Amino acid sequence: MNSSTLKDIQNQNDKRGIEIQNVGVNGVEVPLLIERKNADSQVVSAKARLSVTLPHNYRGTHMSRFIEVLSDYSRRNLLGVDIKGLLYDVKNKLESECAHVKFEFKYFINKKAPISEMEFPVGYDCSFQGDLNGDDYKFILGVKVPITTLCPCSKEISKYSAHNQRTMVKVKVSYKENDIIWIEDLVEKVESCGSSQVYSILKRCDEKYVTEAAYENPKFVEDVLRDVICILNEDEKVTFYDVEVEAQESIHNHNAWAKQTQEK
Amino acid sequence: MNSSTLKDIQNQNDKRGIEIQNVGVNGVEVPLLIERKNADSQVVSAKARLSVTLPHNYRGTHMSRFIEVLSDYSRRNLLGVDIKGLLYDVKNKLESECAHVKFEFKYFINKKAPISEMEFPVGYDCSFQGDLNGDDYKFILGVKVPITTLCPCSKEISKYSAHNQRTMVKVKVSYKENDIIWIEDLVEKVESCGSSQVYSILKRCDEKYVTEAAYENPKFVEDVLRDVICILNEDEKVTFYDVEVEAQESIHNHNAWAKQTQEK
Amino acid sequence: MNSSTLKDIQNQNDKRGIEIQNVGVNGVEVPLLIERKNADSQVVSAKARLSVTLPHNYRGTHMSRFIEVLSDYSRRNLLGVDIKGLLYDVKNKLESECAHVKFEFKYFINKKAPISEMEFPVGYDCSFQGDLNGDDYKFILGVKVPITTLCPCSKEISKYSAHNQRTMVKVKVSYKENDIIWIEDLVEKVESCGSSQVYSILKRCDEKYVTEAAYENPKFVEDVLRDVICILNEDEKVTFYDVEVEAQESIHNHNAWAKQTQEK
Amino acid sequence: MNSSTLKDIQNQNDKRGIEIQNVGVNGVEVPLLIERKNADSQVVSAKARLSVTLPHNYRGTHMSRFIEVLSDYSRRNLLGVDIKGLLYDVKNKLESECAHVKFEFKYFINKKAPISEMEFPVGYDCSFQGDLNGDDYKFILGVKVPITTLCPCSKEISKYSAHNQRTMVKVKVSYKENDIIWIEDLVEKVESCGSSQVYSILKRCDEKYVTEAAYENPKFVEDVLRDVICILNEDEKVTFYDVEVEAQESIHNHNAWAKQTQEK
Repeated sequence: MNSSTLKDIQNQNDKRGIEIQNVGVNGVEVPLLIERKNADSQVVSAKARLSVTLPHNYRGTHMSRFIEVLSDYSRRNLLGVDIKGLLYDVKNKLESECAHVKFEFKYFINKKAPISEMEFPVGYDCSFQGDLNGDDYKFILGVKVPITTLCPCSKEISKYSAHNQRTMVKVKVSYKENDIIWIEDLVEKVESCGSSQVYSILKRCDEKYVTEAAYENPKFVEDVLRDVICILNEDEKVTFYDVEVEAQESIHNHNAWAKQTQEK
Repeated sequence: MNSSTLKDIQNQNDKRGIEIQNVGVNGVEVPLLIERKNADSQVVSAKARLSVTLPHNYRGTHMSRFIEVLSDYSRRNLLGVDIKGLLYDVKNKLESECAHVKFEFKYFINKKAPISEMEFPVGYDCSFQGDLNGDDYKFILGVKVPITTLCPCSKEISKYSAHNQRTMVKVKVSYKENDIIWIEDLVEKVESCGSSQVYSILKRCDEKYVTEAAYENPKFVEDVLRDVICILNEDEKVTFYDVEVEAQESIHNHNAWAKQTQEK
Repeated sequence: MNSSTLKDIQNQNDKRGIEIQNVGVNGVEVPLLIERKNADSQVVSAKARLSVTLPHNYRGTHMSRFIEVLSDYSRRNLLGVDIKGLLYDVKNKLESECAHVKFEFKYFINKKAPISEMEFPVGYDCSFQGDLNGDDYKFILGVKVPITTLCPCSKEISKYSAHNQRTMVKVKVSYKENDIIWIEDLVEKVESCGSSQVYSILKRCDEKYVTEAAYENPKFVEDVLRDVICILNEDEKVTFYDVEVEAQESIHNHNAWAKQTQEK
Repeated sequence: MNSSTLKDIQNQNDKRGIEIQNVGVNGVEVPLLIERKNADSQVVSAKARLSVTLPHNYRGTHMSRFIEVLSDYSRRNLLGVDIKGLLYDVKNKLESECAHVKFEFKYFINKKAPISEMEFPVGYDCSFQGDLNGDDYKFILGVKVPITTLCPCSKEISKYSAHNQRTMVKVKVSYKENDIIWIEDLVEKVESCGSSQVYSILKRCDEKYVTEAAYENPKFVEDVLRDVICILNEDEKVTFYDVEVEAQESIHNHNAWAKQTQEK
């Protein structure tokens, strides 16, 4: 017996009169091929969410079709506008007006220690998010970047030293369809906004360098947020941003936090 | 030496010209006293986020003042409009235009098994969210309710049985300042929308009941979403809702998912 | 129809010849009443795991009976030896040779800032673990304590300052049945082993104090581990310990980590 | 200035007289190349923990050296005994008696739906754990496998249907150095022990098949645990196992749980 001879309950007529904004699958694990700047691609392990709108007169969507489209695209090289093709395929296959996708994955970029220049990859949590409403397409690139922040207040008021901590900066940006913003470039811009950068490997000469650099460049979460915003405001490619800075305060068991969202 | 003789770096003039939308503290752990329906209060263990807007000409906010306000309110009985007082205190103490707060906590409600009537509490993840923009106040109550869903498609096409699973329904609602929606009532409404309810304790007679009840009442995530929406549409107190249904499919390692947001 | 007239599948004879070491329930949410030092009790929101051994000739255990016992004890004042009564009840009700329980919960202790003496609770992740093998009873108390560590190497090699970070110390201890170790005392001992303590509220005068204190008292994770061990070695009540120190390095995106387990 | 001219605080003499069992780095993110059965390799995104013993007379270990060794091995093809070389390198480079490593990663295996034979990868959480004590080497392979369990009690006592749910089976095995157990084979064995297997893609004909298969093959967590144990007992290569079964009960908000550990 094949599937076509089995009754399709999802296609039943629904009487509640409610169009559903989002219905689909969440938490689908899938290997993805991500395009790298100036290089070949990187295979990442992604979590995917795909959804569509469902007209008021249908009882359910067809969940397996999302996986069928995903299967096609998991072997293709993805960044930015390639998500658009996937969304059109979802929209067509599910016969819906709108389609949405989000991929979340760890992306590795090699990083050299500042003095010894020893190299080791840093893993960044990244995301691709795409929305297709009719033919109106929007893509959002997300990165989460660890930096060091050293507290300006603590430095000012203390005889010596200052509390400092690992701080996470989450940035989401949108850009026009003909443009491209590389993960590598966005990460580098964000890393320039901390008191110091963080690294996977640091020899003693490097540790001296980052310790002193952080002390010479104290920053509140407010400072980091504003510095990232200034960079994104100046970047003509950026049409939208959302920036969130969270410092894992070394003197508290809670975090300092700041957030800004802007359509340009 | 006390704090007032130490330089206030946060009050420095900022030249970047950027007003910050949200800055404050996140992940603050605090015991809260929550008002219960028809009963005394319940002490819960909450995670708090408090933030304010920061004018463009100030370099930083004063993080410790959030904790000072929180300290006052952690001993008061909180639900709905009581959050408003807290936000005014934050706004005044931080000299800002807007203030925001979110509390997340586990709230226990006793629940009787359907046949044996044995009783044990179920813990529900709940949240209180408040926003004060000038004098414009909005409160959002959130609950996360586990239910059982049994797949209508699986029931229809199979000789016997049907796959079923634990499904999480997250509901956020807003209501007018003079109204009140109790956690207990919102949870009860959501629980009525599953194929069956879930319980902490079930004897064999109860297990028979819930197994058969679920089979007699199959539901897609789309069905649950629409049934919850119907109830919220009919409730005149509700002015806004956000509903998210996620079924931890027993036949997949990913979830079926649906979501709807509506200002009424 | 009540449960006793329904067939008991669990009691079927099992032919595989395998005695099961642990079978029961996990992730049960339950409010608990915890005895406090020099004070009344505190209601906490716990996650519980209860299990027993199952003889080779029985197919299954009776899951609902764990909840029945838990129901009794959720209203009693619990610490140390009170867990023993619960385990005997589980063992008897489930007709098994051994019984195990673990409760994990957030416990609040008021803490004063070092100079301003402003007070706010800190929430500590704690656990009670009990094992009853025949009549052999063992109780393990667990606490997770945030502290600050400041790197001695970074201080030594840098012109000024030193990297520092939030560090989590997890300690588990066993003690004899007639003794008691209070959560409050164990937390206080661990907090004395950091470069500085962490606090929920710090005014500027306090921030100056903790910044300078940390710089004057640099510690590797190895130092913290050894200092905690020294204290536990000296404490005659302690019969077993497991100590784990993890520093959320402010200059890396990974952690420094050390761990020691010892029967005394 | 290079690192060798900077003082080495870690090499300071320690007077506390405590040999440390484990000290190193935790949560290091690193891409790994994993050997696949009958195929080329797979790049995975791993979290690593590396540690050594530290003699009582040394104050600290040298954290950056762990990353240096990891850097070498992140480009090699790893499974089982290849971990041994890494541990010897860690032991030698850190001049310690014992070395330990744990890698945790998501590993993808293609899986065909039972009737339609449509194919999509399933991502399994896997781990490699290695311990080198002097020259005594032990390797542990870990897999976490989702399956479906359908409750035998619910089936027996109900007029129709039975509650079923996603169940996670965690298995760790050790085997002799000259043997090899492939992830693919271990996963397949575990998947055979559920009421049904889970899949990423299922068309209606497949959904009918798995629904009916699960009903015809009801299993408690005790049954799954014993069936996995039987298979591991029969496998002569296996010298140690640890098995944990956790069913995300569709009728409760907590889980049924069973666990067994055995040296053979």
